[in-house]
Amino acid sequence: MRKANQNEEVEAPARRENGDPVAAVISRRAADRLRAGHVWVYQSDVVGLNFEQENAPSLVSVTDQRGIFLGVGLYSASSQIALRVVSREALDEAQWLAMLQERLRLAIRRRRSMLDVENDACRLAFSEADELPGLVADKYGEIVVLQLLAKGLDNQPTRDAVMAVLRDELLPATIVERPDPRIRELEQLSTPADGPLYARDAAEPLLKTIFRLNDLSFHFDVTAGQKTGAFLDQRENYAAAARYAHGESLDVCTYQGGFALHLATVCSRVTGVDVSRAALEVAEQNLALNRDKLVAGVDWLEANAFDLLRDWSDAGSTYDTIVLDPPAFAKSKRATEGALRGYKELNLRAIKMLRPEGVLVTCSCSHHVSLADFQAVVAAAAADAGRRVTLLERRGAAADHPFVLTLPETEYLKCLICRVS
Amino acid sequence: MRKANQNEEVEAPARRENGDPVAAVISRRAADRLRAGHVWVYQSDVVGLNFEQENAPSLVSVTDQRGIFLGVGLYSASSQIALRVVSREALDEAQWLAMLQERLRLAIRRRRSMLDVENDACRLAFSEADELPGLVADKYGEIVVLQLLAKGLDNQPTRDAVMAVLRDELLPATIVERPDPRIRELEQLSTPADGPLYARDAAEPLLKTIFRLNDLSFHFDVTAGQKTGAFLDQRENYAAAARYAHGESLDVCTYQGGFALHLATVCSRVTGVDVSRAALEVAEQNLALNRDKLVAGVDWLEANAFDLLRDWSDAGSTYDTIVLDPPAFAKSKRATEGALRGYKELNLRAIKMLRPEGVLVTCSCSHHVSLADFQAVVAAAAADAGRRVTLLERRGAAADHPFVLTLPETEYLKCLICRVS
Repeated sequence: MRKANQNEEVEAPARRENGDPVAAVISRRAADRLRAGHVWVYQSDVVGLNFEQENAPSLVSVTDQRGIFLGVGLYSASSQIALRVVSREALDEAQWLAMLQERLRLAIRRRRSMLDVENDACRLAFSEADELPGLVADKYGEIVVLQLLAKGLDNQPTRDAVMAVLRDELLPATIVERPDPRIRELEQLSTPADGPLYARDAAEPLLKTIFRLNDLSFHFDVTAGQKTGAFLDQRENYAAAARYAHGESLDVCTYQGGFALHLATVCSRVTGVDVSRAALEVAEQNLALNRDKLVAGVDWLEANAFDLLRDWSDAGSTYDTIVLDPPAFAKSKRATEGALRGYKELNLRAIKMLRPEGVLVTCSCSHHVSLADFQAVVAAAAADAGRRVTLLERRGAAADHPFVLTLPETEYLKCLICRVS
Repeated sequence: MRKANQNEEVEAPARRENGDPVAAVISRRAADRLRAGHVWVYQSDVVGLNFEQENAPSLVSVTDQRGIFLGVGLYSASSQIALRVVSREALDEAQWLAMLQERLRLAIRRRRSMLDVENDACRLAFSEADELPGLVADKYGEIVVLQLLAKGLDNQPTRDAVMAVLRDELLPATIVERPDPRIRELEQLSTPADGPLYARDAAEPLLKTIFRLNDLSFHFDVTAGQKTGAFLDQRENYAAAARYAHGESLDVCTYQGGFALHLATVCSRVTGVDVSRAALEVAEQNLALNRDKLVAGVDWLEANAFDLLRDWSDAGSTYDTIVLDPPAFAKSKRATEGALRGYKELNLRAIKMLRPEGVLVTCSCSHHVSLADFQAVVAAAAADAGRRVTLLERRGAAADHPFVLTLPETEYLKCLICRVS
């Protein structure tokens, strides 16, 4: 492969009928961003295309306005992110698929050490963090859940290339494709196949299993649940919370009981709250799986977090440990202010309800809310509550969900573990 | 004790000869800060004193300009921080000493769970984080090192009160006072006694010991070393670094070998660099203590971090793991820009020297450099080096060194664990 050089034009391999490379021309600002290590180009920075959007190829060359080659990217006509650069060197479709396979193998190898007798679930590949923009794969025991979230990945050759690596590296029972419905719409992706992409037992494919996180067991059902099904990004935070938790504890937005069950390994009483009855039914099944490892039972309560915390704090209920793990309040930059108000309210209520020497584990998965902003919100809640809150640990997503330092947009999960005096 | 109420004047107990309470009047801005949960008042915010600075008492009442009581604080005429509020309620000297003892007992109890067979050293009390402004106590095995870093604590009744609790809770062999010389000068503190404050064996006081962190052993010598002697705040970061480190590794600013020895439990080769020969001599002794737990030897090298990284990166040396743990570059707000340049330089060199899939563990203990700024510097270094750097863990000081959320000034240690591709 030829090395891209800023002083020469490198031919991009994908070509139009007339022989010109299929290329997108981007603004100077976007070119500077790519040169500084970023890999995204927004639609508003695309200043020219030498192909028709309706027949856009998956992979296009990217050049600046002087025609200087900057790399090769996955193209999308509908996404806000028009281009996701996958290589700074010229490559054709076949070379890209080989590179994708190599990167996916590397991504999986990076996670090998995170899998052991106590953990058989993890994120195998995480998009930009593994130089695989738009590709997310999660392992739950013997089931692999795949998401191809960029238009340029939404094609059979890519599916085949990905499946070959997953099968070879992991010998899974089932590979299922299950893209986030919201992203599917935004990116105008094709409807995934009804059945699994691959099943070892084609007649009776494995679609439900029990996986382990931190030596606890959880049900996984391909056909149900949010995200790819669980909450793997919180794995290390679950374990950390259990190191500090004590006494009577409350897990707000427990979903399928992730934090609650970890609390129940050390606390005297646990209440798990969620607005979704379906999630709590799985939580109850998860509880049943782990009875022998828990020192406390768990009561599940179907309720809205805001209503419940308001009512209970007004009524003077108190706890020794409270976990707040709400869904992302800020789905867009515009929604940030409202999200901060929401976090402030939840944290204020929780801080007021904590007994002296209580533990607050508070999370935000809104990537539009920065860590500094989130911390400031919790500090403001502490001041309003008139309580001294000390920060014991500041955490993020588990190490199988890393983010690229030069792509701060890809960071999302924040978790603060605090002592409330 | 009477509860302070913003609508009435509460009498402060310390009184002048004419019966008025000994009080400092502070600006509106400072009063607002205290009401928002802060506990410091700067000299520039003190607008009146009804006592003479030369004969300042340890403990004074704090009021706003309308005479409304805000709390009781430790007073210093020489520190930038004139007042450190210790109570929002009126109390006299005897009540304060009883409160100090209660808080110190609580601080020690908070750390009980951090001490086990693998760890017999930790910070026992950390100033504002334990509502004991200016009081720092560290435990190294059977030795306790005490620092009384605020003028209002620098008196015999306080020393006696503190010692009584330390002896009662910990049964130490020795208690020694060893204030940071820089702070001693800034705060104009008295010269500490030559010998220990307390020794179980008065004839031959224990002044040297071996303590354990993460199942490794380290020498501690009361009469030597920086800070109170070691680097307890990095305990959890040492363990985290060892979870990711591999191959040939380099520990820059190793001091007495803290990171280097942890790396040597997993890496194939370790080099520890420090500018201080005295520190490296202790590091070598620490190495000898741990031979049976290490899979690699450690080479110690006396060198300046900047010179060494420049020379080695220019020469093309490469490593699989690099730890950067330099001393605080920014000792003041004014020095921040220079500090950021220093961090950029060190991190740029280290990133360039890392092999693909290398691990960078990079620390900053400058509290004038924020986490966001530090992360941005490492991101900029990644961009300059043309390398993809993903963040695996973002860490702070160990949980025995917490900070108060409403006192962000007391945060200092940042540690990023990164993969460099």
